[in-house]
Amino acid sequence: MKKLKNIPFDQLQVGDCDSLTRTLSEQDLILFAKVSGDTNPVHLDENFASSTMFKTRIAHGMWTASLISCALATKLPGPGGIYLGQELKFTRPVKIGDTVTVQLKIIEIDQEKKRATVSTEVINQNKKIVVKGKAEIMPATESITVDEYTLPEINL
Amino acid sequence: MKKLKNIPFDQLQVGDCDSLTRTLSEQDLILFAKVSGDTNPVHLDENFASSTMFKTRIAHGMWTASLISCALATKLPGPGGIYLGQELKFTRPVKIGDTVTVQLKIIEIDQEKKRATVSTEVINQNKKIVVKGKAEIMPATESITVDEYTLPEINL
Repeated sequence: MKKLKNIPFDQLQVGDCDSLTRTLSEQDLILFAKVSGDTNPVHLDENFASSTMFKTRIAHGMWTASLISCALATKLPGPGGIYLGQELKFTRPVKIGDTVTVQLKIIEIDQEKKRATVSTEVINQNKKIVVKGKAEIMPATESITVDEYTLPEINL
Repeated sequence: MKKLKNIPFDQLQVGDCDSLTRTLSEQDLILFAKVSGDTNPVHLDENFASSTMFKTRIAHGMWTASLISCALATKLPGPGGIYLGQELKFTRPVKIGDTVTVQLKIIEIDQEKKRATVSTEVINQNKKIVVKGKAEIMPATESITVDEYTLPEINL
């Protein structure tokens, strides 16, 4: 079983980086619409979406943001951290087949409050920024290793 | 078929409000883990989660944020708007069975840039704030009515 390991607070350093890459599928659009309730046709109906300024279906901005959350929770600082806040600026659309990479970098550590500020930038396959912003995290103080949960198959 | 209607930019006023209510299900946790890739057991494994400070499985913070995005895209200002940015502070956990309400309120309108700032607060069934923050939107300038997309059944 795949393990998730964290970096405890006292081992984190300004400049620490990690990343996560994912390609948007049609299934992602459908699942995100289901779980968020946002059934706006710009995300789901190719015929409708082709009439918009985007010319095709685009991801919900919060799908891309959810990848930031995933990278923080599974990679840097990893499990056991408390997600305190996130600033997001959505700068470009993400389309089916686009490959986006979340780039995390620790930019500030508050030793007193035991919190870290993480730069959270998401770029596409053309190295253009699609989301930028930063996260506030309270990393776990102890070392944590957990089993990644195995999800059931999802059939549409 | 259910229709989604927007409020065009020139009809929006500071103080306009809308809301959206949803109850967290176990399926939401699984779907959000799938679509975000965040399979941290604190969201999925009741046995593991019972050993954490939360005592039970909790929603991914970005699930709650996705409801804000849904409320903006389907209610205020509704379809056709461009989501420019979102600030989020995660203040309390959301557990299975919790009923959360997204409260939107227009707090600023920039006539020159044709943008609106929306206060985005999410409360639980005990009227405690679980997420607070604000959104930046560029609402559509014209009136838009679209058919809400009908999603396929999802089987776990």
